[in-house]
Amino acid sequence: MNKDDVKSIAQKSKHAGLLLGAAGTVKKDAALQFMSEGLRERSTFIMEANAVDVAAAKKQGFQSAFIDRLTITEKTLKSMIDSIHEVKALKDPVGEITKAWTRPNGLLVGRMRIPLGVVLMIYESRPNVTADASALCIKSGNAVILKGGSEAINSNRAIVSILAEALKKAGLPPEALQFIDTPDKEVLYEFLKQDELIDLVIPRGGEELIRAVAEHSRIPVLKHYKGICHVFVDADADIPMAQRICFNAKVQRPGVCNAMETMLVHKDIAGQFLPDMIDIYRKAGVEIRGCEKTRAILPDMRPATEQDWFTEYLDLILSVRVVDSLDQAIEHINHYGSHHTDSIVTKNVEHSMRFFREVDSSTVLVNASTRFSDGFQLGLGAEIGISTSKLHAFGPMGLEELTAQKFVVMGNGQVRE
Amino acid sequence: MNKDDVKSIAQKSKHAGLLLGAAGTVKKDAALQFMSEGLRERSTFIMEANAVDVAAAKKQGFQSAFIDRLTITEKTLKSMIDSIHEVKALKDPVGEITKAWTRPNGLLVGRMRIPLGVVLMIYESRPNVTADASALCIKSGNAVILKGGSEAINSNRAIVSILAEALKKAGLPPEALQFIDTPDKEVLYEFLKQDELIDLVIPRGGEELIRAVAEHSRIPVLKHYKGICHVFVDADADIPMAQRICFNAKVQRPGVCNAMETMLVHKDIAGQFLPDMIDIYRKAGVEIRGCEKTRAILPDMRPATEQDWFTEYLDLILSVRVVDSLDQAIEHINHYGSHHTDSIVTKNVEHSMRFFREVDSSTVLVNASTRFSDGFQLGLGAEIGISTSKLHAFGPMGLEELTAQKFVVMGNGQVRE
Repeated sequence: MNKDDVKSIAQKSKHAGLLLGAAGTVKKDAALQFMSEGLRERSTFIMEANAVDVAAAKKQGFQSAFIDRLTITEKTLKSMIDSIHEVKALKDPVGEITKAWTRPNGLLVGRMRIPLGVVLMIYESRPNVTADASALCIKSGNAVILKGGSEAINSNRAIVSILAEALKKAGLPPEALQFIDTPDKEVLYEFLKQDELIDLVIPRGGEELIRAVAEHSRIPVLKHYKGICHVFVDADADIPMAQRICFNAKVQRPGVCNAMETMLVHKDIAGQFLPDMIDIYRKAGVEIRGCEKTRAILPDMRPATEQDWFTEYLDLILSVRVVDSLDQAIEHINHYGSHHTDSIVTKNVEHSMRFFREVDSSTVLVNASTRFSDGFQLGLGAEIGISTSKLHAFGPMGLEELTAQKFVVMGNGQVRE
Repeated sequence: MNKDDVKSIAQKSKHAGLLLGAAGTVKKDAALQFMSEGLRERSTFIMEANAVDVAAAKKQGFQSAFIDRLTITEKTLKSMIDSIHEVKALKDPVGEITKAWTRPNGLLVGRMRIPLGVVLMIYESRPNVTADASALCIKSGNAVILKGGSEAINSNRAIVSILAEALKKAGLPPEALQFIDTPDKEVLYEFLKQDELIDLVIPRGGEELIRAVAEHSRIPVLKHYKGICHVFVDADADIPMAQRICFNAKVQRPGVCNAMETMLVHKDIAGQFLPDMIDIYRKAGVEIRGCEKTRAILPDMRPATEQDWFTEYLDLILSVRVVDSLDQAIEHINHYGSHHTDSIVTKNVEHSMRFFREVDSSTVLVNASTRFSDGFQLGLGAEIGISTSKLHAFGPMGLEELTAQKFVVMGNGQVRE
């Protein structure tokens, strides 16, 4: 694939995006229906392609967790199909008038949701992202260019061919769904220069991948590097509730970005709260690293270093700090955190209001686990990624975040004086 | 100013932005009040600083239009003060809950507007932008770093010192308003690398300036390069209305980005509409460049070349094309236009609906002049710039476009299963 091929793919995508943007919900939903049927009918074809990828990955000695994510089973295939149905059932955001008002001169001004145009989706080994991301982009009227992990190339090629076929069957341009069919990094970097044709890049995967994409892209990138999430247990927290939330935030699924990494505890409750809580954690196999005040209460632990406050463990490790006040908790979160997700456990209304306003994170919770920071859990219906920068989208991104809003203005001959 | 100075200014800005973001409307409005009073009370100081810039510009032989834009008169100073009062009167967007819903598990989820953080504003000779942009940023809780044209450096230095003083007087950090006090391009480029500290860049000025900023920036840039705006006169247009709109769109202020550059006319109305219209234009001194079909009706004009359709004249020049259909008009606009502002004159409801949906521009109008594409005219209250790319903002940007939305979640102990 050379520079001209890249440009040509991006141009086809742009053109297909315009057609898809003007297509109504009925056609797009028909395409999603054909997609799910195609995946079901051609499951053997997909499994065979996947078997080639899995065999190659085993030969290269990848770890079993990696092989697991790469492997398409009957169950993962069913979940891909279910996801497409869920996206089909969501409300089409395109064409929605989100606001409208009348000007003194009689002009009727509205803001109408439109697709962004072309989305470049970059991800790692899991082939189900191919189907999920395609469904979300098609439903929101966006063309998508997919770049999956090179280890899944045969699986992705098979899935994309079925999905593009479904678009055709629904009378929509199959070029709305294209696939970068080479592991060559230089080709990807060439795509990242097409800022006249591609509107948005969403990288999903490890921090290294995301940094490389951001470094090379001339197109806006929506991303989060990491999730250093906090729970702050306030002085008057309900202790059983705080235990439940802190346990869930750390232990329920430690390897994901919305798991808690640092627990902050108000000094007035620390003596009462920490011993039991840490005991619960230890029984669940969580390693605790504490600040000096934490270790004054429970000396038997590794001290937390400055570096710990900046670390996303993604593992059963937790750093714990005793703070003097709500102010100190907020300062800690805004300084060491990653603007991702933070929670306070409190009975104090004023503290919860201040936490909402002053914590500079994309999802701020009161009396709930950080694990709810997720497109499905928050009620967006689906999630195409999470953004921890504030431009365009902040936090979990659903269908609406794949749209822009234009001004539509209805008049009866108005001119400007 | 070296690299460390740049970083230090950006860090102070970031910190001030956090404080400003947490400040309430009362304090911000007090600061705006002090700003307007400061400008009034210290008008002699401003005029003297401005006289130095004007004298230098005259000495360097700048054109009179440039000198006009640079000069601060009693009238321009009054309009700066008025603008600040208008911004003060606008609704504070920060803290607004734009949507809220309840999840089946009882979680109350809302989206709350928050400031972006730090805005870097880059502009050319007009010193009034210094006051306008500062007021908009402060009201929306953003710190701002200003980089005005080097020819206005003394004027801007004087204005910024007064405005920063007003922040202090209101109990807000004066560092929320900083000024790049050197014409050195390398310093600006160093600022454009501070993507960890600065959230948004808005360049306003000529295409060359904007391209240079976009080229060097690692921070998201909201911009429009040019405005190639169209009016399409449909087959069944009301002719007097079409004349009024087309005249206004081209002639009322030809040097601005929302003026019409190309008029498209449906073939079925061309013979009836064009002769009078072109006569009206010519009497107003407008040069017409026509397609072949236009010249078949009125041979006495320069032919429009392919290049004309891509050109923003910003002058009393108009290219005219006769098209066969609505489809061809939409195709022309999406191909040659700049996604800025386009209007249709029609009595046909279906055509107006298709025009709204299919024209890929930030402001799409039916039966109104393109000149309404402006933050004030559309009712945003003010305008900090216009964006013709779809990420974050599309079209005129007001206070709301200087905010992001975070998720705020209220629970009573929910954890994830």
